[in-house]
Amino acid sequence: MKKSLTIVKVGGNIIDDDAKLKIFLSDFAAIKGLKILVHGGGKLATQLANDLQIPQQMIDGRRITDEATLKIVTMVYAGWINKNIVANLNALNNPSIGLTGADGNCILAHKRKHDQIDFGYVGDIDGVNTLVFTQLLDQGLSIVVAPITQDQEGQLLNTNADTIAQEIAKALSATYDVSLIYSFEKKGVLKDINNENSVINKLDHDTYQSLKNQSLIFAGMIPKLDNAFAAVAAGVNRVVIGEGISLAALIEGTNGTTIS
Amino acid sequence: MKKSLTIVKVGGNIIDDDAKLKIFLSDFAAIKGLKILVHGGGKLATQLANDLQIPQQMIDGRRITDEATLKIVTMVYAGWINKNIVANLNALNNPSIGLTGADGNCILAHKRKHDQIDFGYVGDIDGVNTLVFTQLLDQGLSIVVAPITQDQEGQLLNTNADTIAQEIAKALSATYDVSLIYSFEKKGVLKDINNENSVINKLDHDTYQSLKNQSLIFAGMIPKLDNAFAAVAAGVNRVVIGEGISLAALIEGTNGTTIS
Repeated sequence: MKKSLTIVKVGGNIIDDDAKLKIFLSDFAAIKGLKILVHGGGKLATQLANDLQIPQQMIDGRRITDEATLKIVTMVYAGWINKNIVANLNALNNPSIGLTGADGNCILAHKRKHDQIDFGYVGDIDGVNTLVFTQLLDQGLSIVVAPITQDQEGQLLNTNADTIAQEIAKALSATYDVSLIYSFEKKGVLKDINNENSVINKLDHDTYQSLKNQSLIFAGMIPKLDNAFAAVAAGVNRVVIGEGISLAALIEGTNGTTIS
Repeated sequence: MKKSLTIVKVGGNIIDDDAKLKIFLSDFAAIKGLKILVHGGGKLATQLANDLQIPQQMIDGRRITDEATLKIVTMVYAGWINKNIVANLNALNNPSIGLTGADGNCILAHKRKHDQIDFGYVGDIDGVNTLVFTQLLDQGLSIVVAPITQDQEGQLLNTNADTIAQEIAKALSATYDVSLIYSFEKKGVLKDINNENSVINKLDHDTYQSLKNQSLIFAGMIPKLDNAFAAVAAGVNRVVIGEGISLAALIEGTNGTTIS
């Protein structure tokens, strides 16, 4: 029987709020079995850029990453946020190690090529070096991943945290029984987009297609859900989408939307 | 027979200069056997503090670390410098992983207590968790250590990189045949402080005491040399002190001052 591995992606609305982060990390530390936490932290990066008067440009929710911005996101994500999370998990008796995709070459990436837009130092993932993850997990460490990768020439790259979580989950599903938890600011997938309490607790592929065909899924959710079903198709046991502040209930499957 | 482990401390004059850093990392990648690199990066931290208009105060060469300064040093050391070094070593086919003392609880520390001066969030080291280092080294990874530690309550602490290198060297000398290389801006210990070319190639304890008694050792070198002899007394095989730009020659013992 495979060991269970829980991979949690936590977004900016938790990272940026010390009180919420404390509750979230306490819930994360309480998860049984092997664990990986992937974090973003965009708002803190934007704030540092403002303090340094370095203008930021976002296209389709992606940060155009020039040289000065790469330095900012590497400092904020891999430095400040990552090490604070690691130190706080250690203090909760949950020994943890922080990684970027550069560490141990654990995530292989290349600079994004795009016909119309120059995203700058933004990485697209080529693969995951699973051995680095399995060895650290075997040593009893939880792994905290910052959304920075590198190419093969030593260039650091700003990389989408949702994608990192998904690629790690898919790559490790051959070895572990993987649950992938996407925590974000909504309670889950809604049956009625005007009613925040109409969360669909379990969503299978046929129901999703039917809701999508009837335009009953909020447009912003579609890429997330398409990715979630792709992860399940690639071997991930289940994907849960819901509010980060209810992490314990997401793990239990009593809150949020579970896709399997 | 013990495996050989080389621990190199690299200082600001190399870190801050891209051309010198490139040569240095190429020399580091060429070292045979197991390797750990401990880095500082004070000038880049001071520069970011200036850009953010956060005044910096130094006492006896130590940075008084208030909350804003702790954030700066964590971002610069653990984020920007550490991940760039890791990515560059990977590109040199020297697979590397970056750590702070918080990662895997690998360096245990407490906030400095001092009667007269409040150093702020500055850490003094209590111990080294050798298992984290030996397991990563056994996995074929070089380890790049940023000078940030934590206490047991999850508080990050700014910590002297020389001391980190020395404590890791002492702790790992039970397991490995350890060479500790302190690279700094001078060519080594000078016989004549007015002659930069009068480097003493080998220095034993008796000669050191005699030179010290005659006031022939530059005062700024005394703490470094006292620490070097203490490391040798604690089991470190040799300590070499010299210019970072000549790393290959320091390893060979043809440049710098070797203490054993």
